[in-house]
Amino acid sequence: MNVLVTLKMKEELRHQLKEKYPSLTFQFKYPITEAEPYMPKADIIITYGEDLTNEHINQAENLKWIMVMSAGLDQMPFEKIIEKNILVTNARGIHTIQMSEYVIAMLLQVYRNLPTSKEYQKQHVWNRKVKIEEITGKTMLILGTGAIGQETARLAKAFNMETIGVSRTGELKAYFDTCYKNEELMDLLPKADFVINVLPATPDTEKMITKEHFIKMKGDAVFLNMGRGITVVEEDMIDALKNHQIRHAILDVFEQEPLDENSPLWDLENVTITPHNSSITSNYMPRALNIFEQNLDQFLKGEKPELNVIDPKRGY
Amino acid sequence: MNVLVTLKMKEELRHQLKEKYPSLTFQFKYPITEAEPYMPKADIIITYGEDLTNEHINQAENLKWIMVMSAGLDQMPFEKIIEKNILVTNARGIHTIQMSEYVIAMLLQVYRNLPTSKEYQKQHVWNRKVKIEEITGKTMLILGTGAIGQETARLAKAFNMETIGVSRTGELKAYFDTCYKNEELMDLLPKADFVINVLPATPDTEKMITKEHFIKMKGDAVFLNMGRGITVVEEDMIDALKNHQIRHAILDVFEQEPLDENSPLWDLENVTITPHNSSITSNYMPRALNIFEQNLDQFLKGEKPELNVIDPKRGY
Repeated sequence: MNVLVTLKMKEELRHQLKEKYPSLTFQFKYPITEAEPYMPKADIIITYGEDLTNEHINQAENLKWIMVMSAGLDQMPFEKIIEKNILVTNARGIHTIQMSEYVIAMLLQVYRNLPTSKEYQKQHVWNRKVKIEEITGKTMLILGTGAIGQETARLAKAFNMETIGVSRTGELKAYFDTCYKNEELMDLLPKADFVINVLPATPDTEKMITKEHFIKMKGDAVFLNMGRGITVVEEDMIDALKNHQIRHAILDVFEQEPLDENSPLWDLENVTITPHNSSITSNYMPRALNIFEQNLDQFLKGEKPELNVIDPKRGY
Repeated sequence: MNVLVTLKMKEELRHQLKEKYPSLTFQFKYPITEAEPYMPKADIIITYGEDLTNEHINQAENLKWIMVMSAGLDQMPFEKIIEKNILVTNARGIHTIQMSEYVIAMLLQVYRNLPTSKEYQKQHVWNRKVKIEEITGKTMLILGTGAIGQETARLAKAFNMETIGVSRTGELKAYFDTCYKNEELMDLLPKADFVINVLPATPDTEKMITKEHFIKMKGDAVFLNMGRGITVVEEDMIDALKNHQIRHAILDVFEQEPLDENSPLWDLENVTITPHNSSITSNYMPRALNIFEQNLDQFLKGEKPELNVIDPKRGY
């Protein structure tokens, strides 16, 4: 049985896989152009989900299962996958620790003015006038109340914040003081010091955050997007930031990635940019492989893998 | 009755005090040289505790009470204070939120390489290779298990850390998994990913952390000092950092403050410096005044103030 891995993987982890599953043939071929000759014989493909096309799925005559080592499935060629009835699983749930730490790290960086502090250090200047504020006791609104939203809310509660969740169903989830439906978002925005966007890219969420939303936010609100760039009308956000309608934006995701080097976002003083790496730590790949291996053990016994099975028709 | 305030205070807070206590005469005189002519008539002095001398206490013939609006009392002229039996209270307990947030902010800054990220932003560079690690699940050793140590341990537990406390008595305190006596420190240091120093300056703690301690720490340990500079032999720490015996030091306090502009610490790549402002946020003074006012209300009724009364013989 052939497992084709189209993503970069450290030698140590490759070795572990081969040791653990000696009956399988692993091909580690990155990038996808290197992997293409191996498509026809692949039984299983391991991918980040951003490199496969309908053409690849067509060529992969033996393909039974695609393991997507990320949570975002918006670039998957679901048309052919549905047609050929291929199993898709993903790595949903392995991002919670990294991404909730990202939120706390970045909010504290902004509230404690840490980049300014670092500049003073470079200049050997002892300046005690740098403005520092506390995140404790603030109000955090989280768009998306899944695993990542809940873990973020849990940490927010440790800082004694009020936590408001917003989701499609409005169902009350763990660590939220209150939860509301998407339709109620406009009325909630004026309450939030921190607006955290963890929305996936779906037809429902595309361009969900517009000019009007930034107008409704507090003048000193911090907006953080670590969901998907296309959930926000980027042009509207840039205007809001240029006009100081909100205090700061922390952005890990963008309409186009990598962010164009000529984007005005890079130089805005009230913007912090990270390159879609909020979830990437050295623990990422081992955690994703752990999910893969649990499913693989079932698969090799002839059972159907159970963890994080995706409905290709819904896309999640 | 005369209240002499030798520290800078915002007009808004001055106004509140005068409104609230119309029967008292407030003099706001900063710095201490401005305040000196008012010493002889002062019944109460409000100070940060770093500006008073034995000579001042001698001159202050009416002085009954000194409110120190900080926690550190190492520069107080206790000799004359004892002689003249003057009441001393401080602002102990108002630093817990700011300083515990400082710890989490700075550890995340180091573990997520945020200054490097900011540099890439300045250069418009999308670089996903910046190394990011998680603080979740690490082991934090805290030197000093008082209010600040406990609040720091509480946040550490929210990040699922193991928390080890070290204090004079070794008594188990809230939010610590285990607590040990100072004498056991050497055996505990090899276990800690984060060594957090919240020690006050007392004869017991002076030069407590030496060359041997840095040798015992993990090679990738992060040392954070927000207690007092003189609890560490700074020269030994500089050597340990130059030799990369530990990974990083986060320093808010120093043997001499302000830190000399020629100190080698400023330029070491594995050092983050803040100017003894870990506890300073806009909430600081209102919280300190809240303690003062509770004591003042008792004082004006002829009762003895009860909050944070200091034993001048012990110095805390």
